[in-house]
Amino acid sequence: MLSGEQPHPPRGGRRASARTVLEQVHLAGPLSRAELTRLTGLNRSTVKGIVDELGAEGLVMEGAAEPRKTPGRPSRVVRVCSERLAVLAVEIAVDFVAVATVGLGGTVHRQARVSRSREHLDVESTRSAVRELAASVIDARVPIMGAGVAVVGIVRRGDGVVRLAPNLGWRDVELASLTRGTLAALGVDCPVWVGNEADFGALAEHRRGAARAHANMVYLSGEVGIGGGLIVDGQPLVGAAGYGGEIGHIPVNPDGRTCGCGGQGCWETEAGKAALLRHAGQPAEDPHGDAVERVMAAAAAGDEAATAAVDAVGAWLGIGLAGLVNILNPELIVLGGMYGRTLPAMRQPIRERMTRHTIGPTAEGTAIVAASLGLDAPLLGAAEFALEPVLDGARPVPLVDA
Amino acid sequence: MLSGEQPHPPRGGRRASARTVLEQVHLAGPLSRAELTRLTGLNRSTVKGIVDELGAEGLVMEGAAEPRKTPGRPSRVVRVCSERLAVLAVEIAVDFVAVATVGLGGTVHRQARVSRSREHLDVESTRSAVRELAASVIDARVPIMGAGVAVVGIVRRGDGVVRLAPNLGWRDVELASLTRGTLAALGVDCPVWVGNEADFGALAEHRRGAARAHANMVYLSGEVGIGGGLIVDGQPLVGAAGYGGEIGHIPVNPDGRTCGCGGQGCWETEAGKAALLRHAGQPAEDPHGDAVERVMAAAAAGDEAATAAVDAVGAWLGIGLAGLVNILNPELIVLGGMYGRTLPAMRQPIRERMTRHTIGPTAEGTAIVAASLGLDAPLLGAAEFALEPVLDGARPVPLVDA
Repeated sequence: MLSGEQPHPPRGGRRASARTVLEQVHLAGPLSRAELTRLTGLNRSTVKGIVDELGAEGLVMEGAAEPRKTPGRPSRVVRVCSERLAVLAVEIAVDFVAVATVGLGGTVHRQARVSRSREHLDVESTRSAVRELAASVIDARVPIMGAGVAVVGIVRRGDGVVRLAPNLGWRDVELASLTRGTLAALGVDCPVWVGNEADFGALAEHRRGAARAHANMVYLSGEVGIGGGLIVDGQPLVGAAGYGGEIGHIPVNPDGRTCGCGGQGCWETEAGKAALLRHAGQPAEDPHGDAVERVMAAAAAGDEAATAAVDAVGAWLGIGLAGLVNILNPELIVLGGMYGRTLPAMRQPIRERMTRHTIGPTAEGTAIVAASLGLDAPLLGAAEFALEPVLDGARPVPLVDA
Repeated sequence: MLSGEQPHPPRGGRRASARTVLEQVHLAGPLSRAELTRLTGLNRSTVKGIVDELGAEGLVMEGAAEPRKTPGRPSRVVRVCSERLAVLAVEIAVDFVAVATVGLGGTVHRQARVSRSREHLDVESTRSAVRELAASVIDARVPIMGAGVAVVGIVRRGDGVVRLAPNLGWRDVELASLTRGTLAALGVDCPVWVGNEADFGALAEHRRGAARAHANMVYLSGEVGIGGGLIVDGQPLVGAAGYGGEIGHIPVNPDGRTCGCGGQGCWETEAGKAALLRHAGQPAEDPHGDAVERVMAAAAAGDEAATAAVDAVGAWLGIGLAGLVNILNPELIVLGGMYGRTLPAMRQPIRERMTRHTIGPTAEGTAIVAASLGLDAPLLGAAEFALEPVLDGARPVPLVDA
């Protein structure tokens, strides 16, 4: 799932404490020292020492809380300096390429996106797009600590090779290494991590979105295909080679339709966008990008075919989710992409099938919610991943040696 | 999956190093100090200090390696003292109850097992059996540090309650607390952890069996039902409440047969023992416990129905495994119970379906092997779990204060 050219540095005792403090303000926002002491379990003097150190490094600052929550003496809070450094987040989707610079706190400094047609999905066109977009967002005054690249494909963790991206027509593309070269040509020398788009989306929803504070989570994002990302015991599920979480290709109907992946009866053939349109008697083409919304509106207005389509896709969603719940016993299922929008209408058939196909108490504590970060989730997740070494102690190299 | 009454103690720096050393000799067997230094990454003087400490506590001893591997001066090795302390391992299956005392190194001190009929599956009969068996294996001279209880049911992690055990007819049985009471009556006061039988089996195969050194593993054990246990990134997959790994109830054929769990088209309805006998045209009853072997022998001899049965069940095994591989990308699948014995004949249909129903490279690195610990796997896994606090620093309370 996630891949790196460079391992994250190991953690020591003091470094682990510093990480804990920085992670709190990075993820939770401004916090008083008293709150930091409570949340981290460290003692007050350790927190003070770490805040002072991080302050000297320019990563956090202390100041008045704003807006003031209560009258009287303004309380002082610790917050990240989001402009001190940045990581580059890249998303390579089918219809677009997007790039952003993101600082501590998940603050997006600059963002650029370009749409593209199906004729320009090849590696060279993609590299040009990334180069151009990256050049437009990189600010020479802010050091780039790393880059995270989200791609709609299956990524080998060890070396960031895209083994297969059917919708891009890619096979065995050395994306981490290529991106490193692209950035070097722009004068940026930094480690590059490549991951599956839905895996990064799941990470973002887990860190900053609908799944905050949930240690066991299934993220399911549906458009043409179904992408997924899994959080198990607080950590992204990666698998042996990095290919974990390909949940769109679980065989839910083993003698069913042939899938774009070459398989048969994959979940996305029964619960993807094409299935919804097919059940509703609509053409597969969607030139205005509003076909799903039209089916949902028709169902809401009582149209019979549209209602049957919503029920059928909801049932298949519930069947696939039941399997995942039996396997993973998550506390939360987060639905993104078109499923975030169709959830209200599909909740009942989803729940009905989930109950029928899970054993005993397995699903009783599993909530289903819509994703909260929208289209930006993969970019934000790629940034979170690339920021990990900073949380663990990596710092910008000074321009002039002291 | 796994449940505890008492959290494991936290790890500090020195304690973590001591654990690393003790874990090595516990799992790998006798090792020279030089090997320990290499395997743990600790420096020589730290290893010496820890070995001396563990020796003073009576947990390890140094002595000549035997049998001598090479002529000349005998090399000295560090080995565990398996008699210094023990844990109690309990297995509550349908057809039997088993109890063992197990020391460091996974050495079984004493073991006792009693068969039982379907009329004596109730909680009270089970408690009596456990009490009697435990009394017969406990040695008053060896302190019992904890107990692990493997049960054929769905266990809530937090409190060791068996939420549902369809084959025992149990629902919401406070097994951890009951077992603690049973042991207290025998004069043993120790923490009790309850877990699902297949989860403990998976842990044992991971620590001491076919899956050693494999960080991502699917364990699948089939008899009447299908049990499963998952290892993700080196750790047992537990899930939010402890119900993870119920893979026998993945809906592989959503409009298929009704399952004993009340679901429909669960994997075990298509790939369990009953399915094999049904496809082979054999009665479901198996009074001599050899029905599976007879079908396999008939298939080997060319019998058409038996061959078709082997192919059909192999195909359904492959379909379910394909889903798990897409989700988890394991490097190893370990087949236990009847599947360990049927694997040679089923390997081809399993592989054929796994290839068809996994996406791209996901299954390319996944090996399939038979389990190696046989019937003892759940007992050994329960013991491993109960020994965790000892690895983390728990020690017997001295009988007389120093």
